[in-house]
Amino acid sequence: VSGSGRSSWDDPRDVVASKRDGNEIPGDALRSFVLGYARGEIPDYLAAAFLMAAFVNGLSRRETAELTRAMVASGSTLPLSGVSGPKVDKHSTGGVSDGVTLVFAPLAASLGLAVAKLSGRGLGHTGGTLDKLESIPGFRTRLSPEELERQVEAIGCAVVGQSEDLVPADGALYALRDATATVPSVPLIASSVMSKKLVVGTDLILLDVKAGSGAFMKTPEAAAELAEVCMQLAADWGRRARAAVTDMSQPLGRAIGNALEIAEAVRILRGEERGSLRELAVAFAGEAVAALQGRQLREGRAAAEEALDSGRAAGSFARMVQAQGGDPKVVDDPWSVLPSAPVRLELAVPGPGLRYIEATDAEALGRAAMSLGAGRVRKGDPIDPAVGVEFLAKVGDGVEEGETIAVIHARDQDRARACAVLVLEALRLSDRPVPPPPLIHGWHQASEGSP
Amino acid sequence: VSGSGRSSWDDPRDVVASKRDGNEIPGDALRSFVLGYARGEIPDYLAAAFLMAAFVNGLSRRETAELTRAMVASGSTLPLSGVSGPKVDKHSTGGVSDGVTLVFAPLAASLGLAVAKLSGRGLGHTGGTLDKLESIPGFRTRLSPEELERQVEAIGCAVVGQSEDLVPADGALYALRDATATVPSVPLIASSVMSKKLVVGTDLILLDVKAGSGAFMKTPEAAAELAEVCMQLAADWGRRARAAVTDMSQPLGRAIGNALEIAEAVRILRGEERGSLRELAVAFAGEAVAALQGRQLREGRAAAEEALDSGRAAGSFARMVQAQGGDPKVVDDPWSVLPSAPVRLELAVPGPGLRYIEATDAEALGRAAMSLGAGRVRKGDPIDPAVGVEFLAKVGDGVEEGETIAVIHARDQDRARACAVLVLEALRLSDRPVPPPPLIHGWHQASEGSP
Repeated sequence: VSGSGRSSWDDPRDVVASKRDGNEIPGDALRSFVLGYARGEIPDYLAAAFLMAAFVNGLSRRETAELTRAMVASGSTLPLSGVSGPKVDKHSTGGVSDGVTLVFAPLAASLGLAVAKLSGRGLGHTGGTLDKLESIPGFRTRLSPEELERQVEAIGCAVVGQSEDLVPADGALYALRDATATVPSVPLIASSVMSKKLVVGTDLILLDVKAGSGAFMKTPEAAAELAEVCMQLAADWGRRARAAVTDMSQPLGRAIGNALEIAEAVRILRGEERGSLRELAVAFAGEAVAALQGRQLREGRAAAEEALDSGRAAGSFARMVQAQGGDPKVVDDPWSVLPSAPVRLELAVPGPGLRYIEATDAEALGRAAMSLGAGRVRKGDPIDPAVGVEFLAKVGDGVEEGETIAVIHARDQDRARACAVLVLEALRLSDRPVPPPPLIHGWHQASEGSP
Repeated sequence: VSGSGRSSWDDPRDVVASKRDGNEIPGDALRSFVLGYARGEIPDYLAAAFLMAAFVNGLSRRETAELTRAMVASGSTLPLSGVSGPKVDKHSTGGVSDGVTLVFAPLAASLGLAVAKLSGRGLGHTGGTLDKLESIPGFRTRLSPEELERQVEAIGCAVVGQSEDLVPADGALYALRDATATVPSVPLIASSVMSKKLVVGTDLILLDVKAGSGAFMKTPEAAAELAEVCMQLAADWGRRARAAVTDMSQPLGRAIGNALEIAEAVRILRGEERGSLRELAVAFAGEAVAALQGRQLREGRAAAEEALDSGRAAGSFARMVQAQGGDPKVVDDPWSVLPSAPVRLELAVPGPGLRYIEATDAEALGRAAMSLGAGRVRKGDPIDPAVGVEFLAKVGDGVEEGETIAVIHARDQDRARACAVLVLEALRLSDRPVPPPPLIHGWHQASEGSP
């Protein structure tokens, strides 16, 4: 079979051999393979060989679309027909201190848009929105489709767990990719991301494609490639979509850790904190308002700024928390509700004089927080919602000896000190001023009208 | 892990990610991975991802040696210290109608050499020596190491099944390769072949590396590459070795099928049949005599020719069959011992006039015989020893309309007729004379004195 060149495609090894040899797999054969895997008829080892062949030799645009089509066909859809307003979905490819969804969902709701956000859990050094929300005691992330629609219709937003019958092939393939070192592949990520967006009935898909040390895509160029492939898929499905390639060379916000990130999101929703996280949430909300309410981008952004500064966005968050079983007091007094860690270690800038933050390794900081228990190595590992790192400085900032650069929130002194070493290792200082990196590298959009 | 670039090699996914990215894996990490797989600690899907990455990105000479070293370390060895004469091993990478081992082992024994041959079963379109021998009723291929040594010491040769505790990692990896379309890779084949030769204590390793439509290596160039990698491994271990790259663009002998191939081997051992199969057996025997008995290659070949024509080689075969539980009458009157098929269909050359055999697709002929039940699709499938195809013409032969070109031995008329279609499809005729292909493309040898 595998060495012969002939192929009837009845043997699933022929699909793998074709990709192994750099050939394009016929649509039907690829679809049968993926659906066969989702049904448990193709063994893990053969799917693993396929994933590695696809990783190394790539997938064509047609193959990527067919893979995505098979993922979509593997489960049910969520039409959201019970939601009357203009619906927007927003997804991040994953980064460190990436609380944009926590801010965006209530912010967009406060602007008259509807956000039914299906989120995932964190794995490795990037946090998961569900884990963060579950640091609010009582917060429920499992809602039935009916509950979800009812909540979004009533208060404009909901953030819930990805339902397992939506794209079961993706759940199975993603776990296998994680186990076989085949995660960071553009077509595999694109089909995973977009299949989960395409099954939900929304009017606009917004993607935040992260680029830098803390992201799967290490460079803006690689992230732009991923953004383009995702936009092609949106266009293939006739869906309206925009993607921003954004900086993940340093953590987006200041907080890395679950309750810490909720507290930070609250500060932003209350208009109390500026910075990259607010800026990005406003940029996405502005895009959504412009695209779905027929307004200028400038107007959309201004409306978003106003919703944060007036407290209206915070009100939407409080309603969402209450609707999902949490205590809405988290908006007025976060630490009266959120769990906090017993040990708090302030980390000061070492060495003499004024210097500048030249680089902070976002992935290393994510791993530092993981070392405290804030993240999980393996699916299903427990996490500690209270622990984490607040990293206060941004690339380009001038810092002086003794200035507090980070606060470590830990279970005990030993872990705090071990984490401090990791945090300092993630930091590079320069004697000369350093320009801050751009937050948004560029926007991409799906060509509309097709097909 | 998989996207980060850092690696402590504690996570076996790092080994896979390294090969995925085209990097060389450190020896210790590769060794732990392979031995971990052999012990069942590395799951099939992760090993499958490794195999595909190695297939597509290749393995360096150092990695191939390390992989082979791990395979050798995975099990026990067979020193053959109880065998006193000069010991030679011969292995073919697998072809259609490849009965060389059946002839070589008794031929070498009749020349004073010792051959303890560990053979495999057939899979796909290539036959296995064990399956062929087991078409002799009563023939035992499971001998203990002690029985094996005693038989070789007494009569000069034995052909037995590969023991499972010799190179367990190879057994496991080969089954996984077969299941994941990662068989035809030069370094993976080389380490599989050579690990099984290196654990046996012999004075000379002879390899027959097949090239052509009926072999894993489709071209003489690819086969030469495999031969060179095998010879490098032999040199790394300080072992004496020779490899011939030989033609497998057409079946080597005339018979394709288990009992049919035994009958053909008997004809050659009795000096009754000329042709490529005899020629190749003589070439290997000549090399062995020259290398191990300090004689000229020409003298070695002449001695082999004489052993066939005098019947001495046939006598060794009869003794081997008897020692392993079969009826030695198979040498005097094969079909009084071997099972024969009830249906015999002669296939004539279609169309008018004198024409020439331009090409015969060895793999297609192998599959035609498989369609009768002579081979197996999956490991463990039963095979029918009696059925098969005798394909009488060789590339370059002139054939006339109505001349018998093949005889099909089948269980029933329907299968015989279906097979006839496959046989005719495997044949290409030309109006103009066609030169026969060379039988031996070239010889390779391990550089001696190293390491």
